[in-house]
Amino acid sequence: MAPVGPRSGDAIFASVERVNAELFTLTYGAIVRQLLTDLEEVEEVNKQLDQMGYNIGIRLVDEFLAKSNVSRCIDFKETADVIAKVGFKMFLGVTASVSNWDADGTCCSIILEDNPLVDFVELPDTCQGLYYCNVLSGVIRGALEMVSMKTEVTWVRDMLRGDDAFELQVKLLKQVPEEYPYKDDE
Amino acid sequence: MAPVGPRSGDAIFASVERVNAELFTLTYGAIVRQLLTDLEEVEEVNKQLDQMGYNIGIRLVDEFLAKSNVSRCIDFKETADVIAKVGFKMFLGVTASVSNWDADGTCCSIILEDNPLVDFVELPDTCQGLYYCNVLSGVIRGALEMVSMKTEVTWVRDMLRGDDAFELQVKLLKQVPEEYPYKDDE
Repeated sequence: MAPVGPRSGDAIFASVERVNAELFTLTYGAIVRQLLTDLEEVEEVNKQLDQMGYNIGIRLVDEFLAKSNVSRCIDFKETADVIAKVGFKMFLGVTASVSNWDADGTCCSIILEDNPLVDFVELPDTCQGLYYCNVLSGVIRGALEMVSMKTEVTWVRDMLRGDDAFELQVKLLKQVPEEYPYKDDE
Repeated sequence: MAPVGPRSGDAIFASVERVNAELFTLTYGAIVRQLLTDLEEVEEVNKQLDQMGYNIGIRLVDEFLAKSNVSRCIDFKETADVIAKVGFKMFLGVTASVSNWDADGTCCSIILEDNPLVDFVELPDTCQGLYYCNVLSGVIRGALEMVSMKTEVTWVRDMLRGDDAFELQVKLLKQVPEEYPYKDDE
């Protein structure tokens, strides 16, 4: 029997349970609106969205590993590629690209040109400091922490702020080696 | 050319943009969790979820009318059927059924056996008064208000409370006749 290889983002996305993207977009919008009402400070809303994303990310990674057949990535470079090409496709139905690598391969950008979170969204002047999609940075940070990579994820470009794309910088801070409770030769 | 008829929920669901249901489920869970932290009172959370649903419903109805080719329903009975069979399918990918009509056709139940909002959800003892899916009652109320039907929507059964299905009672309070700025024969 041929070994089972990793599946493409498209194939996984086609096979998983899905809901209407507009419902998702409006539901996400309702969260942001709620947080803006409850917390008042835009900075606090950014923090809260990131924290919500983190909580989602640490759970979503299980679904990702279960459905994608992706095995252990050899390095951070491969990990970033898998997030962009398989992860974004599998969950949001869009593809992202990776670029702007630094020399030692520990920092890169994930770039999104299509982003279902922001359909019909326009920020009023009072929300100019808001990172509306901050849940995404939290999801990536949370998911990577579950595979032993501590990262810092920050926005470099944001179309809601007038930029021409969404760009998230992902910086690897520390890679915790996985520990096994037994040795290989036991 | 044959007239374009209403499309089935399945056909619409297959053609619209979608996102991963687990992402949606976890995102919705993050909202409920956030509200429980911010508002403390379970009753307040129920109200807030309903209000968020209302805000979503008044916008979702546009997508519904645009994509479904459903024209004006002749009465409340037909409206309830369309919500259950086309609406739920189109947005959540599940089918609901309608039953328990009262004698004058102004009150019925919409019954859901499959509900993507509650996958992996268990309520802790401290949340026993919570209507976890209250966003749904708000969505129905909001959407119907946009087509001139004032309704009251309440939970009769809830699987998270140990019932065997999700049952929403939808009661028509008032049907506002649509007003046209001109007469038909003008």
